[in-house]
Amino acid sequence: MESSHWQLQPYLKERMQLVDSALDRYLPDGETLPAILHDAMRYSIFAGGKRIRPILMLAACEAVGGEVNNVLPAACAIEMIHSYSLIHDDLPAMDDDDFRRGNPTNHKVYGEATAILAGDGLLTEAFILLSNRSVWGDISTATYLEVIHILAKSSGSRGMVGGQVVDMEMEEKPIDLPTLEYIHTHKTGALILAAIEIGALLGGASAEQRQALCRYGEAAGLAFQVADDILDIVADQSQLGKDVGSDQQRGKATYPALLGLAGARQRASELREVALSSLDSFGDSARPLREIASFIVDRSC
Amino acid sequence: MESSHWQLQPYLKERMQLVDSALDRYLPDGETLPAILHDAMRYSIFAGGKRIRPILMLAACEAVGGEVNNVLPAACAIEMIHSYSLIHDDLPAMDDDDFRRGNPTNHKVYGEATAILAGDGLLTEAFILLSNRSVWGDISTATYLEVIHILAKSSGSRGMVGGQVVDMEMEEKPIDLPTLEYIHTHKTGALILAAIEIGALLGGASAEQRQALCRYGEAAGLAFQVADDILDIVADQSQLGKDVGSDQQRGKATYPALLGLAGARQRASELREVALSSLDSFGDSARPLREIASFIVDRSC
Repeated sequence: MESSHWQLQPYLKERMQLVDSALDRYLPDGETLPAILHDAMRYSIFAGGKRIRPILMLAACEAVGGEVNNVLPAACAIEMIHSYSLIHDDLPAMDDDDFRRGNPTNHKVYGEATAILAGDGLLTEAFILLSNRSVWGDISTATYLEVIHILAKSSGSRGMVGGQVVDMEMEEKPIDLPTLEYIHTHKTGALILAAIEIGALLGGASAEQRQALCRYGEAAGLAFQVADDILDIVADQSQLGKDVGSDQQRGKATYPALLGLAGARQRASELREVALSSLDSFGDSARPLREIASFIVDRSC
Repeated sequence: MESSHWQLQPYLKERMQLVDSALDRYLPDGETLPAILHDAMRYSIFAGGKRIRPILMLAACEAVGGEVNNVLPAACAIEMIHSYSLIHDDLPAMDDDDFRRGNPTNHKVYGEATAILAGDGLLTEAFILLSNRSVWGDISTATYLEVIHILAKSSGSRGMVGGQVVDMEMEEKPIDLPTLEYIHTHKTGALILAAIEIGALLGGASAEQRQALCRYGEAAGLAFQVADDILDIVADQSQLGKDVGSDQQRGKATYPALLGLAGARQRASELREVALSSLDSFGDSARPLREIASFIVDRSC
């Protein structure tokens, strides 16, 4: 990596393309029966996601000197899980959103029944892919099983799905900071942490490196959500692809609502510092992780 | 196994209890946060399922002389997946059923949002359990990865979920026998076949044994659905726990509708014969599988 010429945006773009083409390769094509289902699955996967989780996974692998190609299947699997969670979150019974990233949501295009099943299909596809021996490369079966375990736990009832339930439960109710942090460390944070941990594991991290990267993952994951809450208030619709202030309107608690806008920005900055200091023992190979943490926070400040 | 005293009903009851107590052990308890979510997951798991898939898995293992305890985690995982599929099938956007096995459906008790998430949680829990090193016993990691792959594939978009999509698509439309068989070999058959194949694999089956058991699984899986269609017409509500003729009312194609009642019974009998003849090379250890195939068909004839 030529440190002087290194820039975040071209890096993110190149990584996004790498992940997109791997997703295209790993997902059943739109002709596979039932075509309508695979169409619906692909619709949401290719609806303009920024691939934050896969890119963080690749960057964590890179930080410990690992081989990025070994991580691509797991990177695609985590994006499938993220995408399924958005399809289900957008359903009328949940957030009832008509648009996501500027495009009609899955159920607006395919109907509710197919959207529910497309979500189920994507979640399951993640585990089909990860248990497929032909994509492992030179990673051991024991390591792959650990990857599956980390990914499943972080996205299940004690992880992402649990955070979503509490988020729904607390709508229109008074909420305190610990509950808000519970929601976000589970709903968004768990999968971001899993991305980092899996990247570290597949990259061959030592126990100390893995621990340091997990500290980074926890802080960056929460920073990401705080920044998202701030953006929900200050961005205009074209930047966000959804209605400005839509979380507030829905009676959802946000960091700015609890801490004020300045307080939320302060919290985001503190989390960036924690994320950056976790990487102190890493050299230049951790530059992408550092720049991503700063980018996450800066876009909201 | 004392062949002279062997009876199916006590066998099924004992196996059901074995599976129920393992499910209770493996599922997060109702106090685990978020409590409402784990409550909802447990509600559907313990709502009177007959544990057909886990019992078939145990019986396939037994047929090849395997150790039944090695199969329990996978048996519980397949039941979690079956249970999640019922929760999602019953949703208003799908079959819109208020009752299942005589009890209110998950969304009638917990609301739609929590029901969707309870389904997501159960599906994910299956993979958390299967990738948990502490439950493997003396099974190798390579075998466990194969188990995960079989289970994921059979329940995903080219298996159970795919069958469900085509089933929804064909409502109120004219349907031919090949399409009906596509629906059932995917929607119900794929998971029953997976139960048998995983039982064979974990029991240490030879390649020939595994192939023979898979033939059994395909035939028994389809027989199960044909019998279910017949029961939907001839049983009374107390036997069925749902409205009699409810599939017909919904405009769903059934075997009796396409083949007539006598033709459907004939098809069920033929499938039983295929299932039984697949077991010709097995001795007394396959008796449970034989009796189950007969029981599936006889209850509808």
